[in-house]
Amino acid sequence: MPHETQANPWEKLRSLIATNDGRALADFLDKIGPSETARSISRLEQAEQARLITLLAPAEAAEVIEDVTMAQAVDLIADLSAEDAAAIVGELESDHQADLLGDLSTESAEAILGVMRPEEARDARHLLSYPPDTAGGIMVTEFVAFREGDRVSDALASMQENREVYADYHVQYLYVCDDGDRLKGVLRIRDLLYAPREAPLESLMITNPLTVPATAKLEDLERFFDQHHLLGAPVLDDLGELVGLVLPEDVGEAGRKRSDRQLLDISGIVGGEEFRGMSLGLRSRRRLSWLSINIFLNVIAASVIAYYQDTLAAAIALAVFLPMISDMSGCSGNQAVAVSIRELTLGLVRPEEVLRVLGKEVSLGAINGLVLGAILGGVAWLWKGNIYLALVVGGALLVNTVLAVALGGLLPLVLKTLRFDPALVSGPILTTVTDMAGFFLVLSMATLVLPKLAIG
Amino acid sequence: MPHETQANPWEKLRSLIATNDGRALADFLDKIGPSETARSISRLEQAEQARLITLLAPAEAAEVIEDVTMAQAVDLIADLSAEDAAAIVGELESDHQADLLGDLSTESAEAILGVMRPEEARDARHLLSYPPDTAGGIMVTEFVAFREGDRVSDALASMQENREVYADYHVQYLYVCDDGDRLKGVLRIRDLLYAPREAPLESLMITNPLTVPATAKLEDLERFFDQHHLLGAPVLDDLGELVGLVLPEDVGEAGRKRSDRQLLDISGIVGGEEFRGMSLGLRSRRRLSWLSINIFLNVIAASVIAYYQDTLAAAIALAVFLPMISDMSGCSGNQAVAVSIRELTLGLVRPEEVLRVLGKEVSLGAINGLVLGAILGGVAWLWKGNIYLALVVGGALLVNTVLAVALGGLLPLVLKTLRFDPALVSGPILTTVTDMAGFFLVLSMATLVLPKLAIG
Repeated sequence: MPHETQANPWEKLRSLIATNDGRALADFLDKIGPSETARSISRLEQAEQARLITLLAPAEAAEVIEDVTMAQAVDLIADLSAEDAAAIVGELESDHQADLLGDLSTESAEAILGVMRPEEARDARHLLSYPPDTAGGIMVTEFVAFREGDRVSDALASMQENREVYADYHVQYLYVCDDGDRLKGVLRIRDLLYAPREAPLESLMITNPLTVPATAKLEDLERFFDQHHLLGAPVLDDLGELVGLVLPEDVGEAGRKRSDRQLLDISGIVGGEEFRGMSLGLRSRRRLSWLSINIFLNVIAASVIAYYQDTLAAAIALAVFLPMISDMSGCSGNQAVAVSIRELTLGLVRPEEVLRVLGKEVSLGAINGLVLGAILGGVAWLWKGNIYLALVVGGALLVNTVLAVALGGLLPLVLKTLRFDPALVSGPILTTVTDMAGFFLVLSMATLVLPKLAIG
Repeated sequence: MPHETQANPWEKLRSLIATNDGRALADFLDKIGPSETARSISRLEQAEQARLITLLAPAEAAEVIEDVTMAQAVDLIADLSAEDAAAIVGELESDHQADLLGDLSTESAEAILGVMRPEEARDARHLLSYPPDTAGGIMVTEFVAFREGDRVSDALASMQENREVYADYHVQYLYVCDDGDRLKGVLRIRDLLYAPREAPLESLMITNPLTVPATAKLEDLERFFDQHHLLGAPVLDDLGELVGLVLPEDVGEAGRKRSDRQLLDISGIVGGEEFRGMSLGLRSRRRLSWLSINIFLNVIAASVIAYYQDTLAAAIALAVFLPMISDMSGCSGNQAVAVSIRELTLGLVRPEEVLRVLGKEVSLGAINGLVLGAILGGVAWLWKGNIYLALVVGGALLVNTVLAVALGGLLPLVLKTLRFDPALVSGPILTTVTDMAGFFLVLSMATLVLPKLAIG
């Protein structure tokens, strides 16, 4: 049935795995391409995925690892023996190596590093020692460097000789270092085109080239490549030694991953990415870890309502408005959270600029609170014709909107200062506080004017 | 006060603008770098921003435009005369040109295009004709192409002659085209290093090079550069003619922007990015446009509670649980929304795979619903000691969690099929439906067992 095979390549994949034909598997994956490879693997059972990866040669398995998402890659590697995993990891590019080892559990990573070739393991450990969202964590260590005193002919001969190795490198720049590996200059390949062969590299190279420190943060690197259209930037450690090369496409990818992480955090997907190919137990556990904190916070917030039960019993119409106040305050606050997270990410605000954000959000919260409060008060008045009910719910939403917007704006700054993840933690704190405040405002004001709330 | 100047570079910027010293302004912006430029400009009043950009020479203004976020750039350009704006736009790289013109209002963009040099305007219009998240929308048109029959010496001479122009290009590959601009082959600069000068380019070039169609989608380009470590890919139109060059860093940037857009959409920041440097009126209006839809949806959902007022009055404890059911169902549903948006973005699920997602989410929803329902029922039982209350709120949360998770998983697929923005529209629909269903479940079940709910 050719049509079905085309629609569901994972059925074909499944049957190839069942026949243990590694050669045919590799050819098939090559044919369907990386996008379909990732999708098809996500449809396989865990056991089939493990079979698949062991049936492939290490270099082919490494290609599959580079095709799929990091969460899938971790799954694929996790069940292998340390030896099998190390063979595959050894075939990955240095930055993929570091990413993958960094995402595995410490024990798995250590087991793999323990059986890798010593110099490879040393390089990988070195890369792992840099935080992920820094130049050191993003850089590749495949670069071509020459010594001071080398000539154009030396460089040409060396490049010709090593062309097989360098074919996998991103060789657009050649680096010239002194004997202590300190960077002295940079050459573009095209500078060699017109150079006499006997010229020393020093005479052609750009001295004082643009470099980035290994500690440079992702946002600094983004600005750097926005400003300078370079195909790579040399990375220096704190001794000024050349330790790697940051590529603009890797910076772009790291930025995308950070944004994706924020999207997942803000939606309560914690503990790493979730895909529907993962086991039900894992998906359920991870989502519950987040939900169970939220239900606990919800119970705390709702206790305010319980405290005012008598008021509520006397003016039952209020019960209609409580979920609305909770939801609308949450919406207003989450908008401010998103703006603060964006401004922090883009470097447009610094965590200590609390007063500026407060000023900006309080005035906005007042305007939006007035509008929303008037709408909700109007709805209450139209429904029950009671001006006190209208004033209580409208007034409570006004005040609570100012609070929600100000708190939403501030929380990411404060959490960032305290080294929490703003995208992950802002939401639950925000909604708990604004729920409690909103319920308290409605019900305490209602208690004050209770005799006037003579409504159904 | 040197310390204050250092802490707040926008004060210095403000005073330089006041003195009308364009030269000193350009030097100062150059000194503080792109990151601080973006932050400082965000602190200026609209009138100061307009002054700033008119004080700079077009090339310097273009540099500022490339330093700041697109939302800021649009603000900076918006108030200029078409002539002044066109002078600046003419200095931007082709892809920045297209991005900026695409983000301006149609009238502004047309006015600027109308006064640009005709061939520049034609190129810009051509780029604008491609949807933003396609190869055509992402590509640059600065590339170097030679004709079939040209020799290595021709290429070297031409590159030497045009080195000033090419210095701004991303020249890593040279393209060889036939007389109809159809791509015949690709050469890397380094291939020229060892080639005899009289050799025809055809003898060195890679024939059948990897190319991408102008219609290729962003996710295809991401996979392409993940798989092939290329420094650029030639873009062909539907006639097979070479129309541009996609760079991996631009693909990375487009991917990051898409993720950022999703983050903002999901948080209810609509109509483009918001920064606190924007006017209060604009920020307030944009946020309210979103909130006012939500308050309307909230009123609809709350009408379910109003309908069951008598039940609520007879068992007031239920009022404590209504906001919790609403909030917890929203949390569960939003997790599923985020997973579906991620899977769609990564190509791990297709919009038509509704049944697969439904199956995966219903089983997960049942597990999580059981756990959360048991917790909430337990809380109710501990509080009031009434097993019927516990069964009503626990049972309602169980059923509503299954509904929320299933709906949250499906909505992004359905909305994508219907060509709505899943990140923007999923949330409000989800919470309205799950609020209504949750309130209905609690209150209708409570109505059935009302005599047993003899509680305070």
